[in-house]
Amino acid sequence: MDPLRWISDEYYELNGSSFDVLESPPTALEFARMTHISRPVLIKGFNGVLQVPAIERWTDEYLIKKMGSSAISVAVTPNGRADAVTPYDGKLYFAEPHIEQMTMGSFLSKLSPIEEVVKGRPETYYLQSQNGNLYSSQFYEGLDAPSEYEPLRDDVPSEVPWCSEALDRRPDAVNLWIGDSGSVSSIHSDPYENIYTVIRGAKHFTLLPPTEGWCLKERMYPHAAYTRSSDSPALELQPSSSDTPPVRWSSIAEPHLPGVLPSDAHPIHITVEKGDTLYLPAGWWHHVRQDGVTIALNWWYDMEMRGMNWVLLSFLRTLKDVPDGNEVEDNADEVSSIINATESE
Amino acid sequence: MDPLRWISDEYYELNGSSFDVLESPPTALEFARMTHISRPVLIKGFNGVLQVPAIERWTDEYLIKKMGSSAISVAVTPNGRADAVTPYDGKLYFAEPHIEQMTMGSFLSKLSPIEEVVKGRPETYYLQSQNGNLYSSQFYEGLDAPSEYEPLRDDVPSEVPWCSEALDRRPDAVNLWIGDSGSVSSIHSDPYENIYTVIRGAKHFTLLPPTEGWCLKERMYPHAAYTRSSDSPALELQPSSSDTPPVRWSSIAEPHLPGVLPSDAHPIHITVEKGDTLYLPAGWWHHVRQDGVTIALNWWYDMEMRGMNWVLLSFLRTLKDVPDGNEVEDNADEVSSIINATESE
Repeated sequence: MDPLRWISDEYYELNGSSFDVLESPPTALEFARMTHISRPVLIKGFNGVLQVPAIERWTDEYLIKKMGSSAISVAVTPNGRADAVTPYDGKLYFAEPHIEQMTMGSFLSKLSPIEEVVKGRPETYYLQSQNGNLYSSQFYEGLDAPSEYEPLRDDVPSEVPWCSEALDRRPDAVNLWIGDSGSVSSIHSDPYENIYTVIRGAKHFTLLPPTEGWCLKERMYPHAAYTRSSDSPALELQPSSSDTPPVRWSSIAEPHLPGVLPSDAHPIHITVEKGDTLYLPAGWWHHVRQDGVTIALNWWYDMEMRGMNWVLLSFLRTLKDVPDGNEVEDNADEVSSIINATESE
Repeated sequence: MDPLRWISDEYYELNGSSFDVLESPPTALEFARMTHISRPVLIKGFNGVLQVPAIERWTDEYLIKKMGSSAISVAVTPNGRADAVTPYDGKLYFAEPHIEQMTMGSFLSKLSPIEEVVKGRPETYYLQSQNGNLYSSQFYEGLDAPSEYEPLRDDVPSEVPWCSEALDRRPDAVNLWIGDSGSVSSIHSDPYENIYTVIRGAKHFTLLPPTEGWCLKERMYPHAAYTRSSDSPALELQPSSSDTPPVRWSSIAEPHLPGVLPSDAHPIHITVEKGDTLYLPAGWWHHVRQDGVTIALNWWYDMEMRGMNWVLLSFLRTLKDVPDGNEVEDNADEVSSIINATESE
């Protein structure tokens, strides 16, 4: 008996692949039950001006005026695939984006709601710093924790009341995300309870439970990062030095497409529209695409480490064999799907 | 890597073997968090007359007066070990008790707080029917569900408010337990969230997390039951017919004694005194002894089946190899420890 397959079969048999939709935010007690069940829930109604003012305030004009000439950090890639497996010089790498500083006005001018514009441009910009760019854990500890988005803090609550009360803790990080359909987040999982609210546009999530991670063909990939050298304005992938540890990542670039995942995987597709909030439980795998210019906020809360919760996620992760992504035999299909995905964006 | 050993090592490393003590009952939200962590908690203060009137009312005189000449079902064994592995005629059996009908007065007269009396008597009586003897699931469904202990229902709330609210359900069963130090519950686990309140005397729990079940040497044993035949008043063990399925049970009769469990097991010892309540999470293994004449109540709630909770308990159970208890090689020590335990009671 393969333990990972046994667990994922049983999990699917018991839970299916449906998700609940709440018409209004849960109470703290309801959310505590939700974290115990640990399945994704689409939450409507966490979008009033009293809850998340950003929803009603954040026009381009407002954002540009508030942020003025402040520099913000934006990820740049040639293909919209930051933090993804990328071919370069006959090898596959885990590629981090180039980070550029610019004003909000300059950044927003680089986004487009028009598919042809997105497809035709040589570079894709994505505000995805995800380091607690609005509020970080130091903020909650009362330490000086300046944010690049200080002028926008009035529009974003530093915590989600029903979540903080349920988990008896404050967030570890609150992030702002701004991008367009040119940017895709490759499939990965985080050890956080995640509250994800869309402010403008829409996000398409493809989700897999922690139990189905074994279907994702994780590999070890050497690290690389995009750079812009002084003598050429074009972005180039730069393999990192050999002492940079390799990165464990899924080799499945487009899990949202039909027929790409093995039949043992049961993906859940959830579109989060403007004003909707997704509860994405700790350890769930997610791939994220977006429609047009999309703005989102997320609150990351540390998961409950006591009891079996963390042990189980570790177990599902540890039991897997994770080969070197450049040494896997018979992986021609895998490599060509990665190349296709990279070039199609 | 042995998956069961890996999980139990990690679980112990993260959780240790301590338990929390609350000085007053939790709120529903606090209890919801407790079920997510799923570790035992000793709760003080769930014992006021407004909460559990039995605590202040249940003298022997009161119980006898209230119950009058009503017949109650009591378990009888020669050794106080109902539902336990028992040697008979050169073989080991899972032995169920004989059930006798008697009045409360007659039953209470068979119990003793005196150790010499307990040790010297040929039979042990234990009110342990555990079928929802006070309230069963039909009761909550509004169906006619008479209880042998109808006259005592006024003294026992049909649900635990903070538990029902946290779990968003009513109990599956509420049980009354009355016995003395002659009765021992052999180690086992239940798929229920268990709220266990001691009304008189004290109960000594030896607990193991679900992850350490692999240390308990579970075996399959043929089924048997004590009977009192018409021609002899003595109880005799009667093997059941061969179409009665064998019972899976731990072969460790006295896990509370030092040195009996393998070193990979980390038992938690909790004494629940009069007025104390134990939260015993679903799937936790428990062995229970008692001090003097002991009265207890327990509320069983169905565990949350959605998500990973049930899958994980099944996994820990299914992965184990469970041999025939009468066919295990080199089990002389095991058998003699069972025989010793059986004879020492």
